[in-house]
Amino acid sequence: MSESLQTERKNATFNIKELTDTLNGGPEETRKRKQIESLVFNTPAFHRQDRFQLSREEIYDYSIKVYGELIKLCKKENIEIRYDNPDYVRLVGCIPEEIPVGLHVGMFSSSISDQGTEEQQKKWIPLARNFKIFGTYAQTELAHGTFVRGLETTATYDESKQEFILNSPTITSTKWWPGFLGRTSNHAVIAAQLYTKSKCYGIHMFIVQLRDLKDHKPLPGVTIGDIGDKFGFDTVDNGFLRLDNVHIPRENMLMKYAKVTPEGKYLPPTNAKVAYSAMTLIRVVLVRGSAKALASASTIAIRYSAVRHQTETAPGKEPQVLDYVTQQYKLFPQLATALAFGFAGNYMIDTFNKIHSEISSGQLDALSELHGISSGLKAYTTDTATAGIEVCRRACGGHGYSNACGIQHIYANVLPCVTLEGENTVMYLQAASKVISTIKRLEQLRRSGMDQDEAWNTAGIELVQAAKAHCHYFIVKNYLRSLEKLNMTPSLRKVMNSIALLYGNYGIDENAGDFLESGFMTGEQLNLVKAKILQLLSEVRRNAVAVVDAFDFDDKYLRSILGAYDGDVYNRLYNWAKSSPLNKTEVHSSYTEYLQQLLKSKL
Amino acid sequence: MSESLQTERKNATFNIKELTDTLNGGPEETRKRKQIESLVFNTPAFHRQDRFQLSREEIYDYSIKVYGELIKLCKKENIEIRYDNPDYVRLVGCIPEEIPVGLHVGMFSSSISDQGTEEQQKKWIPLARNFKIFGTYAQTELAHGTFVRGLETTATYDESKQEFILNSPTITSTKWWPGFLGRTSNHAVIAAQLYTKSKCYGIHMFIVQLRDLKDHKPLPGVTIGDIGDKFGFDTVDNGFLRLDNVHIPRENMLMKYAKVTPEGKYLPPTNAKVAYSAMTLIRVVLVRGSAKALASASTIAIRYSAVRHQTETAPGKEPQVLDYVTQQYKLFPQLATALAFGFAGNYMIDTFNKIHSEISSGQLDALSELHGISSGLKAYTTDTATAGIEVCRRACGGHGYSNACGIQHIYANVLPCVTLEGENTVMYLQAASKVISTIKRLEQLRRSGMDQDEAWNTAGIELVQAAKAHCHYFIVKNYLRSLEKLNMTPSLRKVMNSIALLYGNYGIDENAGDFLESGFMTGEQLNLVKAKILQLLSEVRRNAVAVVDAFDFDDKYLRSILGAYDGDVYNRLYNWAKSSPLNKTEVHSSYTEYLQQLLKSKL
Repeated sequence: MSESLQTERKNATFNIKELTDTLNGGPEETRKRKQIESLVFNTPAFHRQDRFQLSREEIYDYSIKVYGELIKLCKKENIEIRYDNPDYVRLVGCIPEEIPVGLHVGMFSSSISDQGTEEQQKKWIPLARNFKIFGTYAQTELAHGTFVRGLETTATYDESKQEFILNSPTITSTKWWPGFLGRTSNHAVIAAQLYTKSKCYGIHMFIVQLRDLKDHKPLPGVTIGDIGDKFGFDTVDNGFLRLDNVHIPRENMLMKYAKVTPEGKYLPPTNAKVAYSAMTLIRVVLVRGSAKALASASTIAIRYSAVRHQTETAPGKEPQVLDYVTQQYKLFPQLATALAFGFAGNYMIDTFNKIHSEISSGQLDALSELHGISSGLKAYTTDTATAGIEVCRRACGGHGYSNACGIQHIYANVLPCVTLEGENTVMYLQAASKVISTIKRLEQLRRSGMDQDEAWNTAGIELVQAAKAHCHYFIVKNYLRSLEKLNMTPSLRKVMNSIALLYGNYGIDENAGDFLESGFMTGEQLNLVKAKILQLLSEVRRNAVAVVDAFDFDDKYLRSILGAYDGDVYNRLYNWAKSSPLNKTEVHSSYTEYLQQLLKSKL
Repeated sequence: MSESLQTERKNATFNIKELTDTLNGGPEETRKRKQIESLVFNTPAFHRQDRFQLSREEIYDYSIKVYGELIKLCKKENIEIRYDNPDYVRLVGCIPEEIPVGLHVGMFSSSISDQGTEEQQKKWIPLARNFKIFGTYAQTELAHGTFVRGLETTATYDESKQEFILNSPTITSTKWWPGFLGRTSNHAVIAAQLYTKSKCYGIHMFIVQLRDLKDHKPLPGVTIGDIGDKFGFDTVDNGFLRLDNVHIPRENMLMKYAKVTPEGKYLPPTNAKVAYSAMTLIRVVLVRGSAKALASASTIAIRYSAVRHQTETAPGKEPQVLDYVTQQYKLFPQLATALAFGFAGNYMIDTFNKIHSEISSGQLDALSELHGISSGLKAYTTDTATAGIEVCRRACGGHGYSNACGIQHIYANVLPCVTLEGENTVMYLQAASKVISTIKRLEQLRRSGMDQDEAWNTAGIELVQAAKAHCHYFIVKNYLRSLEKLNMTPSLRKVMNSIALLYGNYGIDENAGDFLESGFMTGEQLNLVKAKILQLLSEVRRNAVAVVDAFDFDDKYLRSILGAYDGDVYNRLYNWAKSSPLNKTEVHSSYTEYLQQLLKSKL
């Protein structure tokens, strides 16, 4: 155990266990979480030591193994795989890999639950729940992402056979990006333009079998594969898919809302918005994921900054990096943000559960509101978290750049969230359409003679800024309210209040231009804010290590040498390096192939 | 050829060739560059198609092959490998991989040139220049980076044998991070604490042979290897090194300045600052590299945004993404920054060359000034460029996240520069010690009773901000001066002025808080700046593709499917995906290993 970390823990002014329980929602919740966690952390298959030294193929293979192990474990422990089952959420939360179960349950099954008729649910949900089929959700195409109406895949109804015929009419209509589509799934819910009686009725969802259940070979007319390497999500076989006259029965169109009769008559839906409910859930999950990712990165960077000593400031005195104000100014706002986003995530999931039960009972009014909030917060939290994670990584100096740090894998798995399920600028613009002041600006532009689209485009930069400010405001307000409601001892409350105040003041300082420009604040007031930040940094300093300890991440989850609980950084780094694949032999084969020739050649 | 790109090029209001020539320094310079480039681009070994699908080992192997080919090519074409040879700089500029020659020439040889005696230069430089030895530079240790005085490796003089004995006394003293140290180099210049007659004289440089020249095996007492995978620089075998009683002759200490006599008497240097000259060169090179990297990323993102159409704004009209103001606001400031940094890089290299010739003739006065400027600009340009490159990548939407985009590889190879050769916060603080206003702040703090180190720490945040502002100011000023000096036709000057104005106004808007707080500007004036930015974005829009074309990056250098010159994005993406290693078989082996079991099991 590093002496520096021991001292940090001894000096904390609050009880670490109390904060852990507070964040978990009570001691009983902590107990349940730890019980479930031990199931995962005691199964070696979930934690390959050489994870970060595997090739892409080996990583994919490993993720499929983890997938199988997870399902087996759930069966053995009688844990139902549903996102509304807290035990399952606890369990899957211990696995720091993307595996197919998320899309299978969260997008494939839930699309069928939300948009399928009762008969469709009866047929498909048990198959999916028992993993007799593996499903994913295929919407995005090579040339069409956020603009769903522009998708080109067609599903044309043939009333003589009572079948839909699916086609990818152009290269740009190739389905592209769906997770676990390339090699894993044998079914997908596919978004396609519905044609019947030679008329197009827009985008609808169809269940399509892609691979043979006996030998996993692609079915006739199906061209399918992995789309190649990418930044992050290396376990995932994001796929492409081309359909060439693929026939499916009429009953495979999801028909809870819109319908096509056996005779080919189109019956429109009563409410089109419901189509977005599965995607809204994913966004809520992404907000919580951002909070957890930033908390993990803060844990690593803060522990390492307490272990690392740097630069002699007085003879014989090399302070901990965490003692430098510049380092505190980088890291403590990230810690505060992780907590703020955690509370925002709690609010979102509560709201979603409330609204979702309303949807199930046919009340759809609140959904468009949640769609707006979830868009804005998804964009704001993923943007802010990725930036903050990178701040944490860089704050680890040179070693932050080694894979032994672990933060870059957190980054790589959060980064795609900036784009997936809705590119962030588009998300902000969706959220902005709720913000009152933008309406005024738009009216102004329209009065100047612009049409609505031109006005929206010209105001885009301000709209995005307004949406960010709105999200930020929402998160600060929710953070303070959440703290007020919690039951804490005075010593813990004092620490939590300092961190929340840091979050608020830091946010003002970061956006000082907006506050000053609008006259909400003077330069002198801003100086007070800056002075307050310095004071808060020094208050947080003493408890920083204890607060990240309270997140209670297991070393097996963090997978970080710099951020391990015991702080034995240098011995661990040296042992890790020795296991690098490039060190298998004393002399690498490239020597005999190339270097030796150079040495022998006359130059 | 994409129709969209054709239209963009037709609509440009200036001559692309004229801008290319202007950026290159005249038509003759362009001609020379293209001549050298054709040598590289016509040698297939330099451009493996499957580069982004190789494993770490294969990539390292490939980089060593490229190293060999480069040396062969230089020999054949009679191009001397020196950074003051423009032809060599042109040649190596076409190779988008990190290969050992940079450290060998830029750090190993130049340390010997700068700090070795004439005899040492006579002995070692021809061996290095003819690649009879492969060298690197080993300073950083496991627990000691920026704080050079804290290094623990020792070189103890044994006067009886007239040898130095090198040791790594602790685990934390293990040399860590030096590029191409792990598997490639057989020699290194090593920084160690010099001991003679039981007294320590601080850090000095020693030439140490690490591997046998016959079989490349590590010499007795040498433990050496690769430090494992990391974020970026995947071609490089960053290494660790432990020395256990390794003997080297007295003559292997670099003795141009400090000396140890055969009897073991230490003669101190006349000027200690010279030790940093090689590192200062690397920083200058990093400024130019940042500019080029950001120019490459801008090229990819701007071309792709012109090809990609998104969202129906009017029936049947799906505009180019580049038409959205939010997209312009992301990308055009990056383009402007790339140009600004390019001019800053030109200034730096001119200054370095001037000062370096003064150093060679023994005048060292200007060096500490260059050290300060180079620290600040290194930090500012690498920080800004990495952030800007990531903006470009995200602006490519979903496909920006595929390796086919190419921007993440630019990012990965620039990112380490934020930390290497001096962590950026430390760099800013070095630069800040030149900034007048900070001195006042420090005096204030010291009057309040703090000692100097405490005051420096407390003022750290402001010092870093002051240094950034100073660098930004320097770059804007240099940008405008450079444009003034250039000979351009009115049509080109108009375009270049718009971009420069965008850079200036965007900088004010980004740092509005500072301008408003200090009273330099009112909220109304800021609104004028914002309106001006909108106007400039629309001016730049028309010529954006033409300007990035003028950077004249060959497709083989860019290695981007989204940013290829012809804009045939979707066909290229589809073909690229089909070659993914995961697609080698119709059914992946993980199916039979894991998925089939799941399907068969009763759940």
